[in-house]
Amino acid sequence: MTAATQALSRASDTPLAQQLAQRMAERIAQRLLLPGARLPSVRECARRFSVSPYTVVAAYDQLLASGLVESRKQRGFFVRETVVRGSSIAAGVARQASAAGAPPRHAPVDATALIRGMFQSEARNAPGLGTLPGEWLDAPMLQSALRRVITQSAGPEQLALHYGEPGGDARLRDALAQRLSDLGIACEAQQIVSTVGATHALDLITRTFLKPGDAVLVDDPGWAIEYARLSQAGMKLLPVPRGADGPDLAVMQRLATEHRPRLYVTVSVLHNPTGNSLSLAAAHQILKLAERFEFLIVEDDTYSFMAPNHAPRLSALDGLRRTLYVSGFSKILTPSFRVGYVAASAEKVQKLTDLKLISTLTTSPLLERAVALCLEQGQLRRHAERIAAKLGSARHRAVRMALDAGCRFVTPAQGLFGWIDVGADTERLAQHLLDEGWLTAPGALFSPTRQAGTLMRINFATSQDARFWRTLVRLRSDLTARR
Amino acid sequence: MTAATQALSRASDTPLAQQLAQRMAERIAQRLLLPGARLPSVRECARRFSVSPYTVVAAYDQLLASGLVESRKQRGFFVRETVVRGSSIAAGVARQASAAGAPPRHAPVDATALIRGMFQSEARNAPGLGTLPGEWLDAPMLQSALRRVITQSAGPEQLALHYGEPGGDARLRDALAQRLSDLGIACEAQQIVSTVGATHALDLITRTFLKPGDAVLVDDPGWAIEYARLSQAGMKLLPVPRGADGPDLAVMQRLATEHRPRLYVTVSVLHNPTGNSLSLAAAHQILKLAERFEFLIVEDDTYSFMAPNHAPRLSALDGLRRTLYVSGFSKILTPSFRVGYVAASAEKVQKLTDLKLISTLTTSPLLERAVALCLEQGQLRRHAERIAAKLGSARHRAVRMALDAGCRFVTPAQGLFGWIDVGADTERLAQHLLDEGWLTAPGALFSPTRQAGTLMRINFATSQDARFWRTLVRLRSDLTARR
Repeated sequence: MTAATQALSRASDTPLAQQLAQRMAERIAQRLLLPGARLPSVRECARRFSVSPYTVVAAYDQLLASGLVESRKQRGFFVRETVVRGSSIAAGVARQASAAGAPPRHAPVDATALIRGMFQSEARNAPGLGTLPGEWLDAPMLQSALRRVITQSAGPEQLALHYGEPGGDARLRDALAQRLSDLGIACEAQQIVSTVGATHALDLITRTFLKPGDAVLVDDPGWAIEYARLSQAGMKLLPVPRGADGPDLAVMQRLATEHRPRLYVTVSVLHNPTGNSLSLAAAHQILKLAERFEFLIVEDDTYSFMAPNHAPRLSALDGLRRTLYVSGFSKILTPSFRVGYVAASAEKVQKLTDLKLISTLTTSPLLERAVALCLEQGQLRRHAERIAAKLGSARHRAVRMALDAGCRFVTPAQGLFGWIDVGADTERLAQHLLDEGWLTAPGALFSPTRQAGTLMRINFATSQDARFWRTLVRLRSDLTARR
Repeated sequence: MTAATQALSRASDTPLAQQLAQRMAERIAQRLLLPGARLPSVRECARRFSVSPYTVVAAYDQLLASGLVESRKQRGFFVRETVVRGSSIAAGVARQASAAGAPPRHAPVDATALIRGMFQSEARNAPGLGTLPGEWLDAPMLQSALRRVITQSAGPEQLALHYGEPGGDARLRDALAQRLSDLGIACEAQQIVSTVGATHALDLITRTFLKPGDAVLVDDPGWAIEYARLSQAGMKLLPVPRGADGPDLAVMQRLATEHRPRLYVTVSVLHNPTGNSLSLAAAHQILKLAERFEFLIVEDDTYSFMAPNHAPRLSALDGLRRTLYVSGFSKILTPSFRVGYVAASAEKVQKLTDLKLISTLTTSPLLERAVALCLEQGQLRRHAERIAAKLGSARHRAVRMALDAGCRFVTPAQGLFGWIDVGADTERLAQHLLDEGWLTAPGALFSPTRQAGTLMRINFATSQDARFWRTLVRLRSDLTARR
């Protein structure tokens, strides 16, 4: 766990008040506590950290003196607004919420916290994690692939000495074309451009095919980073409720009629956070709407390797005419390689490659070749099969523990994530869980309007610890008792 | 050399006409011949490739049949306009030229050709190359650094299994802060954010601090990609003539008064293409103008390691208040790692990190740590010293050959690039040189208005072959004779 969630140490030479002040300062620095957020009351903080109210007052005084927090009469202590607020992701999400009619607000746990949590190297205590934990990945396979890339080529021609091709490593693109054909998506290598992970792919698409003010259909619930990026780029979000077999088509048709969206971006298979996949019928209807209202579809297949090859992809039905297919390797291979890609019509890929060229030149040919090696030799496929089996067992255990803890599954449990109703406000609960060292993903993170509620996303791989579920039950009853 | 510039083979089973048609088709595909460009006349093409006019006619017929070119009555054969033109870099540059009053036009050799040339793995025949050739780089140092990154960390905590930190690898940022202090730029590690090479750094800055319509001061001559990116993002370019010791300050002041620019972006040290560096006096005056007219300065120190540490940097004088310092490792270490960075005020770096997060999540911690290892142990410094000595000798030889070939140095020869006047239209010359296998960098690539002329940039490291200079002399006299 990070310093921000460790217990205070009575054995330390550092006074408890100073430790507590440092703890709070770190959280503010890491933006786990955002500008404008209220610190816990003295009484509550004392209880949480098992210290005296006097210690808390001393700690808050230190934070006041350092300028990190301010005191507001009769209301308590608040994290000071900082100059960077205007551009922060939190503010982006808040702006979006504001645009949608809800008042902007500063949630104590927000996208930034969750995202920064993803970048902590220790994920054992993160039931809200967005990836597989490091220990589930195949480190020897990664190391061996990288070693082979380094040693295979020699002389001045070697990969390590050059930019690489603008569209991405040719062997990677060949291997990806093969992978896509396994998914039923016919595609030549020149219809693929590599990117810095799937996020970069989505960013290039936004910049190439949209202009500020364009309307974009998004899944609701969906992923906060996607909402934040689209909002930051000036797009108007049109949330479409996502049900068990796909988006609400009646709502989609109404929004398309009223707003003439330019694009629909969706995680079609093992959707984040619900874990559900499109039915074949829904996929067909979506494509019909896209044709009728002339919008493009971005199919984000980030969880591709965790789903069966036969799960229906929009891009397979459409033949990459109206669809752009996006995927990457952060969820199955490793997030550290930062390798993603777009597959689309040759014409669209040419435009995307032009923007890639002027905005990053190229992406690293070394890491792309390493991914190619893992794909070519079937290693990644076999690893994915092992992960699927392991994840199946983990899911089984996590579902049982969640049900025992009185949680309800909103949608059937599949893939990496569970979408559960815990029966208490998950934003407040998330803050309390964080105090005890558990990073979770409250439902507001997946709402285009940052709507709070009782839903939460869990990662089946990192929700295996019975202590987490016991803590959740205890904190929930605390919250409910104090209503 | 690439297939596009090899001689036709009479020994091949493929007929000469078909070889020639393939050659032209490859050039069109690689965009060395752009949409709208005229193919050489039948007579000229026959001469260039030493084939009969009949062979050329047969080849052009094949290109016509394939739809790649079109014939215009009495005017010859032209590369067909394609749908991607609107978004291409060439078009971006053309739009810019158009905005500045000059008519947009399609040059046969343009930024795309040069840039794509940079991505060819064989650079021996590229006197216009923008980087050191692969054989000058220290491949064993790179391999050893990568190997150490792979093996040093073990267990689930290892770098290879995680996203890395949003701001970039902590050890890299520490090493960079140290490097910057050697250049006289005082800077903490948290004032640094890593990027996918310097190009990505410039892109993040543009997106964070500018909005479409903003006016931006740029050096003239300067780098085509920079012009293209700013134009594509909707900025109004204000070219400032660049002299031997810096920009023309009178012009800068006039433009600042009239257009209230938001930013000045400049390569302060070993400027591309002139090779010159700012004088201390010019740096001081630029900062005074920036303060008076309240514009930011982006100091692109891409050639940092090829210049002495004591060369005056704007960021050193300014203390990173109004300046953002950008650099990377493509020019000295390797382009394949794609590691660059921005150093600026903590507030600006926070904004840049937020945008980096929503547009790429993170950059690869593996490659960043490898760069950190090279920096920490002084290996990169020693390599840079060896390069400086080697480049000095190469420059000496190249200058002598250039002068013997009747070329004139516009500015004193320094660093990697020479900026020379060859006494003939360099765009036409570049096309003829390409036919004989030499990729050059004509002056129009460095003009914000794509102004043709007699100037050319040479790379001292790749202009060592006497055959290049002989070919240049011969083709120049051909061009002059046919005037």
